Amino acid sequence: MFKEFNVSTEDRYQLIDITEKAEEIVKESGVKNGLVFIFVPHSTASIILTENEEGLKKDWLEIFKKLTSGIDFQHNKIDDNADSHILSGLAGQGKILPIKDSRTVRGTWQQIFLVEFDGPRTRKIIVKIVEG
Amino acid sequence: MFKEFNVSTEDRYQLIDITEKAEEIVKESGVKNGLVFIFVPHSTASIILTENEEGLKKDWLEIFKKLTSGIDFQHNKIDDNADSHILSGLAGQGKILPIKDSRTVRGTWQQIFLVEFDGPRTRKIIVKIVEG
Amino acid sequence: MFKEFNVSTEDRYQLIDITEKAEEIVKESGVKNGLVFIFVPHSTASIILTENEEGLKKDWLEIFKKLTSGIDFQHNKIDDNADSHILSGLAGQGKILPIKDSRTVRGTWQQIFLVEFDGPRTRKIIVKIVEG
Repeated sequence: MFKEFNVSTEDRYQLIDITEKAEEIVKESGVKNGLVFIFVPHSTASIILTENEEGLKKDWLEIFKKLTSGIDFQHNKIDDNADSHILSGLAGQGKILPIKDSRTVRGTWQQIFLVEFDGPRTRKIIVKIVEG
Repeated sequence: MFKEFNVSTEDRYQLIDITEKAEEIVKESGVKNGLVFIFVPHSTASIILTENEEGLKKDWLEIFKKLTSGIDFQHNKIDDNADSHILSGLAGQGKILPIKDSRTVRGTWQQIFLVEFDGPRTRKIIVKIVEG
Repeated sequence: MFKEFNVSTEDRYQLIDITEKAEEIVKESGVKNGLVFIFVPHSTASIILTENEEGLKKDWLEIFKKLTSGIDFQHNKIDDNADSHILSGLAGQGKILPIKDSRTVRGTWQQIFLVEFDGPRTRKIIVKIVEG
């Protein structure tokens, strides 16, 4: 099962909770047991699992700024988004979760987030499910 | 195949080698070829693959402190563990390994570790196997 | 489907694009839909997805140096490569991509890279495919 949907982002860096949409696709797939892979086919965005709390979302943005601060990026001579590529690669463009008894298995504070590093843009999210 | 087991941690930050238990589950599953996904359903712990060497385990803790140092976390007004969430998200809550000829495929120095970022706690580890 | 190939690296830190070889293996597998897992069974190398641009490859090396700078690594008393282990663990030793209609699904600027952190060496790359 392979599904995709779009998300429009509004800021250059932004965290957007996509848990509900992703879990809806798992439910509609009818798959009882397996793995679900949530993936962005982009090199300046990420998928992470973290708590949906307003303060924490701000903290993530501070960490992202800190990780790439103080470097004179060569890529910025061509396209001013070296930070976006680096953060996307470090945070990862896809995450996996188990499916058990037709439900996505995750912790209470493990929401699924799209992380935008070079917005605003329209991003494609792929939800790929394998049974087993 | 979906199995889980618990691990009790003792320190706030701690690396615990769970290779033996994870590989035992793969062996008992009888699966000859496929993927095994080792996952923590928690947002303040991680699974990483690294060498089990005492000095290196200390070095990991130093890196984790360095990555989140110098930031006035907003989340800490609610719950004093923003660092734990951030590090869990960066290091990742799950890792995949191939299964070939009934064996977990990994490098000699690639042990499977639970990383605790907000202990002491009891953590659940999920081992999900798909054949193929 | 489980395949492996070797890549020889030339520098201590180096990014090598392995997209073509990995996609060739997916094509030859005959698998129409599923997941492909590209994995290094090493604890001092990584697989990342990023743009193949000369400036950006240099920027990645700067970031890697920054992440591990200023720490007196204990592991270096035994083997002088604590930085290699840490960066391998942070950047991750494997990445997953969907397969759809016999093609590897990835973004235009998402090339597949082996990242060497302790070269020069000969590295093994595993390509594991599951259908579904």
